[in-house]
Amino acid sequence: MRSEFDFIQNIKQKYSLGRVGDDCAVLPKDAEIDLLVTADLLVENVDFRLEWTTPECLGHKSLAVSLSDIAAMGGKPVWSMLSVGVPEYLWKTDFIDKFYEGWFALAREYGVELIGGDVSRAPESLIIDSIVGGEVGKGRAIMRSTARPGDTIFVSGSLGAAAGGLKLLENGSRFTANSFDSTNNLLLKQLKLQPQIMLAKQLYSLDIVTSMIDVSDGLSSDLAHICEESGVGATIDAGRIPIDGNLNEYFPPDECLSMALNGGEDFELLFTVAEKNISLLETLDISRIGKITGNVGSIELITDKKSTVLQPKGYRHF
Amino acid sequence: MRSEFDFIQNIKQKYSLGRVGDDCAVLPKDAEIDLLVTADLLVENVDFRLEWTTPECLGHKSLAVSLSDIAAMGGKPVWSMLSVGVPEYLWKTDFIDKFYEGWFALAREYGVELIGGDVSRAPESLIIDSIVGGEVGKGRAIMRSTARPGDTIFVSGSLGAAAGGLKLLENGSRFTANSFDSTNNLLLKQLKLQPQIMLAKQLYSLDIVTSMIDVSDGLSSDLAHICEESGVGATIDAGRIPIDGNLNEYFPPDECLSMALNGGEDFELLFTVAEKNISLLETLDISRIGKITGNVGSIELITDKKSTVLQPKGYRHF
Repeated sequence: MRSEFDFIQNIKQKYSLGRVGDDCAVLPKDAEIDLLVTADLLVENVDFRLEWTTPECLGHKSLAVSLSDIAAMGGKPVWSMLSVGVPEYLWKTDFIDKFYEGWFALAREYGVELIGGDVSRAPESLIIDSIVGGEVGKGRAIMRSTARPGDTIFVSGSLGAAAGGLKLLENGSRFTANSFDSTNNLLLKQLKLQPQIMLAKQLYSLDIVTSMIDVSDGLSSDLAHICEESGVGATIDAGRIPIDGNLNEYFPPDECLSMALNGGEDFELLFTVAEKNISLLETLDISRIGKITGNVGSIELITDKKSTVLQPKGYRHF
Repeated sequence: MRSEFDFIQNIKQKYSLGRVGDDCAVLPKDAEIDLLVTADLLVENVDFRLEWTTPECLGHKSLAVSLSDIAAMGGKPVWSMLSVGVPEYLWKTDFIDKFYEGWFALAREYGVELIGGDVSRAPESLIIDSIVGGEVGKGRAIMRSTARPGDTIFVSGSLGAAAGGLKLLENGSRFTANSFDSTNNLLLKQLKLQPQIMLAKQLYSLDIVTSMIDVSDGLSSDLAHICEESGVGATIDAGRIPIDGNLNEYFPPDECLSMALNGGEDFELLFTVAEKNISLLETLDISRIGKITGNVGSIELITDKKSTVLQPKGYRHF
């Protein structure tokens, strides 16, 4: 079965869509500013389960995933539209009020204005489409397609926690407020992620990032997106991957590495910088994990000096 | 149970949302242009049925409903984002390819560029969220909130056909290509509407329209939206309502009138013009149906010189 990525590549070519295929579309706004727009569709029992989350967390996450796309282009979020399809049994409760409370709490944090959307009935499952508009300096949006051979590859924060949190939820763990243990750290990363807006702002100011994407599908898949769009290859040093420290308590080392490589939804930033500029990044919470190469289409994982092919094994809908 | 309109009014007030509540949100773009943005969520078995339409018609309609919102502000559509949630059984067929063919055929007609969106799996029902961005002269978007007592009320084309088409579909009629009879005329209005972009352009050029909305919920409800947002009342002359001529063949006169008053999805334009300017409208395919009054909250229907209250009986999700 064709994946959604193949499908998107296909319509992109068939209909000559020049703006499709990055975290956000980039449109001219005025003489100084470009407009960024992104849409994220979240469907119950595919992207979330109501028994695993709270309405407030779900509202937070619905906005956060789109803010992460704006961050991945180096942009500043400005406005949002929210479309919700709500089953009648949920509409009769205060679910949707609490959902908006969670949404607005995060929106206020980043000064995002809700400007519209749609409210519809849905037959069975809750549906959320989050659209966010942002701004970036003219011609300065950081694309996936501009990594260059020799660039160093960095990733922010740590990886695998969202996948670990998902596994714990599947195994019956539930979030409890005000408990600051490893379980909750992993669950929070899955249920109430923090988009890397502030880091994106710092990186944008430095003006040295050659390409960027957010880790939404999983490191292996998102790095493959950068390599494909940029027409380059990469080598990744397995020992340098920042595996989330909370995972060790629950999972064996090889599963921790696999979650960090292929688990989606960490919403960290994966980006590239020319070697000569990397000293400017010293104060940031990031890890240097590899190199962009001219070996087009080849992504290698180096473990104990042995090289294997890093297959894109991140999340796919189809 | 609270309606979606009550819910939207409530969050609009609770969170001080100044841009919510018209056909589109209006945002500043540059010194001359304002940006219009609209989102429309279409859910299978709520907004459409797959056994009643074709993938191409559904693609067309998904874009057309949003183009209609841009038209209702006097704007010109420019770009679109499309989010689709697709059940696996449909993904395996060529349904989604044909859906995009229908979508692009209409997009090309109006020069609309697809700039992004999202593709997700959905558990049971097909879900479509259509987002369209458009442009209008700075400060010149035609709002719902600016009708004035004394203004004359006009509506374009004819009303009730989409509701008639829906009834025929429910009763088993199906669309057949190249058949130009009344059945097909009604079905086409329901399944493959033509958004009033050209009329909107003419009205915008004349620069005399004081308020406008598209007839999506139904005349009675959409007129109520204008009156509520503008803080005015209205009287409508039942004899002047342009009931679609194809309805007579299938429905008794009182049902035809009811469909024209309360049937949704005709996507005609309902607008108001100051009395002194109405001679400028003579060449257009529009009907003069009533007057805006200062009688706040009162909408009267005049039938044979007798007045009754026109209740908003258009489509509601909740």
